Amino acid sequence: MVRKIVVIGGSAAGAKAAAKIRRLDMKAEITIIQKAPDLSMASCGYPYYIGGVFDNRNALLATPTGVVRTPDFFQKTKNIKALVQTEAVAIDRGKKTVSCKNLVDEKEFQLEYDTLIYCTGAAAKLPPFSGLELEGVTTLLSMEDTDRLHAARNDASVKNIIIVGGGLIGVEACEAFGNSGKNVTLVEAVPNILTFLDPQMAALVENHMKAKGVNLITNSAIAGFIGDAGRLTGVKLQDGTTLDCECAVVATGVSPRVQLARDAGLEVGALGGLVVDEYMATSDPSIYAAGDCVEIKNILTGKPALAPMGDLANLQGRVLAQNVIEGNNVKFPGTVHTAICKVFDFGAGATGLSEDAAKAAGFDAISVINASPDKPGFMGAKLLISKIVIDQKSRRIIGYQCVGNGDVSKQLATAAMAIQGEMTLEQLTCADLPYAPPYSLAIDHFIASAHIVENKIKGRLKTISAAEVKAKLDNNEELHIVDGRGPDEHEVLRIGIGEQYIPVGALRGSLDKLPEDKNAEIICFCKISLRGYETALILEENGWTNVKVMEGGIMAWPYGRER
Amino acid sequence: MVRKIVVIGGSAAGAKAAAKIRRLDMKAEITIIQKAPDLSMASCGYPYYIGGVFDNRNALLATPTGVVRTPDFFQKTKNIKALVQTEAVAIDRGKKTVSCKNLVDEKEFQLEYDTLIYCTGAAAKLPPFSGLELEGVTTLLSMEDTDRLHAARNDASVKNIIIVGGGLIGVEACEAFGNSGKNVTLVEAVPNILTFLDPQMAALVENHMKAKGVNLITNSAIAGFIGDAGRLTGVKLQDGTTLDCECAVVATGVSPRVQLARDAGLEVGALGGLVVDEYMATSDPSIYAAGDCVEIKNILTGKPALAPMGDLANLQGRVLAQNVIEGNNVKFPGTVHTAICKVFDFGAGATGLSEDAAKAAGFDAISVINASPDKPGFMGAKLLISKIVIDQKSRRIIGYQCVGNGDVSKQLATAAMAIQGEMTLEQLTCADLPYAPPYSLAIDHFIASAHIVENKIKGRLKTISAAEVKAKLDNNEELHIVDGRGPDEHEVLRIGIGEQYIPVGALRGSLDKLPEDKNAEIICFCKISLRGYETALILEENGWTNVKVMEGGIMAWPYGRER
Repeated sequence: MVRKIVVIGGSAAGAKAAAKIRRLDMKAEITIIQKAPDLSMASCGYPYYIGGVFDNRNALLATPTGVVRTPDFFQKTKNIKALVQTEAVAIDRGKKTVSCKNLVDEKEFQLEYDTLIYCTGAAAKLPPFSGLELEGVTTLLSMEDTDRLHAARNDASVKNIIIVGGGLIGVEACEAFGNSGKNVTLVEAVPNILTFLDPQMAALVENHMKAKGVNLITNSAIAGFIGDAGRLTGVKLQDGTTLDCECAVVATGVSPRVQLARDAGLEVGALGGLVVDEYMATSDPSIYAAGDCVEIKNILTGKPALAPMGDLANLQGRVLAQNVIEGNNVKFPGTVHTAICKVFDFGAGATGLSEDAAKAAGFDAISVINASPDKPGFMGAKLLISKIVIDQKSRRIIGYQCVGNGDVSKQLATAAMAIQGEMTLEQLTCADLPYAPPYSLAIDHFIASAHIVENKIKGRLKTISAAEVKAKLDNNEELHIVDGRGPDEHEVLRIGIGEQYIPVGALRGSLDKLPEDKNAEIICFCKISLRGYETALILEENGWTNVKVMEGGIMAWPYGRER
Repeated sequence: MVRKIVVIGGSAAGAKAAAKIRRLDMKAEITIIQKAPDLSMASCGYPYYIGGVFDNRNALLATPTGVVRTPDFFQKTKNIKALVQTEAVAIDRGKKTVSCKNLVDEKEFQLEYDTLIYCTGAAAKLPPFSGLELEGVTTLLSMEDTDRLHAARNDASVKNIIIVGGGLIGVEACEAFGNSGKNVTLVEAVPNILTFLDPQMAALVENHMKAKGVNLITNSAIAGFIGDAGRLTGVKLQDGTTLDCECAVVATGVSPRVQLARDAGLEVGALGGLVVDEYMATSDPSIYAAGDCVEIKNILTGKPALAPMGDLANLQGRVLAQNVIEGNNVKFPGTVHTAICKVFDFGAGATGLSEDAAKAAGFDAISVINASPDKPGFMGAKLLISKIVIDQKSRRIIGYQCVGNGDVSKQLATAAMAIQGEMTLEQLTCADLPYAPPYSLAIDHFIASAHIVENKIKGRLKTISAAEVKAKLDNNEELHIVDGRGPDEHEVLRIGIGEQYIPVGALRGSLDKLPEDKNAEIICFCKISLRGYETALILEENGWTNVKVMEGGIMAWPYGRER
């Protein structure tokens, strides 16, 4: 029997599923139905083409050796029929047919299937802004959007760009317009961008974006777009402010494209994605689905999740292909929501649960922020600031966030595997990682994070976060703050919140400078708070009972500094 | 009670143990006995100072903020007494004393201890070469060696350097003399350098070193050094060849420094290292040991191992400090032998067991070599070539090697955590890793390795390694080899072993070019062997029964190419 396979959607999940099915069954009749004119677009690469990292638009559509993945390419190298500019308009599950429409000649036709693969992706989730129809307003989800924004970047008449939404796509859009000579403004409705980060971590990224010239407006929602003769001229915020702009990118999230499946009676979940089992089969065993249109499992909470990521779409496509051809035998485990983005000179990302998310999910979560270099100073160290989240009950690592100009990507990959390997804090503190000075410190930043949180759990180290110190300051609490660095250092950089400067090496001879009240709250820090830790230990040795170390020191302080 | 702690050795493990003990016990009396004049040397950084990556010698001895870790620094910031240029000459376990000798004034004295920490490190393992005493012959293990080689690099009269031994230190020494204008020769007794890599992987690194101008002589042992008036003038190989040189670095391995412990009756293991339990206690419960002088457990085989690495020394020092102060409660799990080194533009490293080592240890090991980019071509992809080793019985990953100019360090960290997290192949094939185009491919190189080896295990893909193809060629076997790349590609680069050029897109129309005998052995490849895989599938579909894919394609072929 020759299997008839129809794949709706020819981007990440669909194209991968089709190619893998072909390798597993050389005789199957495989047809891809693709609404867009292109196939297998490298959609995560759009911001870098817009930003001029590369000039060859075809690179977004080509194999690693530069062959554009046209229908002819799919036919010749893979014996897959790819129908582009073709829309699937209805699924008849009883007859096992898909009704299709050629968008060029508008002809309708039907395809029979034995198995249907549903990979329709996600669509922009557009809030009810007025003026969305104005010329100059766009999303950043398609090749068409990309062409529009690529043109805008090179258009001298576009002087002001406003990006609405500070998620991954919004931040990557900022980066794409960096160094373009244009005014770039990011408007985010909630208090911080990149909500997979806890607020203090996000604030560090925000500082970097501001330093790179982005005008960042958080905690402020858009009311609508305003225009003149059908062209965008500005944005109106809900507080009444208007901002001029000639181009706006709406990046307020995506939602699964499930209408066709819903119309066919397939089960849709509470989050709006198609329900699939571990084999990526929908509620109809002849229909599988993968990619941005489905709900998958959050491995840590066991709950359904939306995780519209290109890498997961590909992995799901490969899993379902095996199940379709070999019978259900390969399970897709789910996601730990690993994400990363480049933000100018910073990397920023997370894996697992943020501290807030972990607590909301009922974990006994404890965390610590660690600021330290990615390698020795003599090898050109760069900074990493991370936050590790441990579940005190299972002692497992359940979350890790990392930002900075150091090697963030390696940190996140290390943590992602530790989380998926269900590793405990004890294993992390003694992990055997690749060490040589060009690549890391003798005690890698990730392991150091495990050491610090272990010290905290064991009660050796009492910490306070910069966010908590800031709240106390804003509340006018009386604080004794000790900076344990040397004079050269605080001459160059200091917070300026009334801290005393007592280098740790001089502390034992300077105890008379500390509060007489041994129960006074004293907060210690240094550049990264290792000397802050030593300062605290000396104070405790000398009778002070309420001494805390500020996590990550001055490097993790995001609230403005004196210099 | 004030604990008296004596630490023998003030480099990685000893200094870390002392500092951690201080943080856990502010009252303990801590004394470090250090034979060298310096403390806490960043010994893994020596090659980079020699190579001119940085000019400030003090950086090897300083904290991240630039404070040199002198005895005064240890006293003031850590309240630790550090006695440098002082040798421990005897341990009296009954009296709990260490006899010491000041190497400057030759005065002897005794220190009492409650707990003794033994961190003497390792010494050069010198084969019985003649002429080792000649001026110009050195090891690369101490600050003194480093100063000597730093001077040699800047000495115009030194024109030829010979490095004896192709392990980590030998290869790093080559790198240190790269771009120095000197002739650099590496002599290795066994057939390949970097023996933690399987031979084909090592050969890829060797090619890169040769391309960078290193004269590489493998499978050739040194007979001795020859000199004139006490100065080195050359090296004599065992085959009688002599090579001129004015400087030679002997990097033929290290062995644990255990004489003092052995004299005191402590147990020494079969590998020559001190025996310690999981708490890092020696056979005397009052004496703990850590670092290059001890034997630890190989986590994968359960057998004792020597693992003289700076990162593990630090981690062990931290573990024992906790056990000394808090009672035995923290276990050091052991090593998976993770290692990395920079070799000019390449990174090269491994974690877990090589295929050869895994088979020798009794595992049902299967492996595959994968050559593919570290990120999309449009983001400036660089090459990674890796070898993953899976135990078919437990389905766990037990080894991973990686070389190339791509992000080798991240690959190894990912794999190291997967091994230590006891992750199975099924987990790896669906791993949720940080993906964005600046950092990786949608299907990360590591995950792709898991996919390929899974295909191999499931019988979807029959592979042959370049090493096996080479052996067949050397054996004059008749081979049908098909290169599935396009004409532009093989014009630029081709192996030249009699392969046929049939682009995969044209294969279905060119089947008459293949052997008539459907049982003939046909070997397919392309640049990285993805199209090689597709070529093989098309041939199998058309009746050929003995078709293999050459792992890693042309990029993993280390045996010379036509262009």
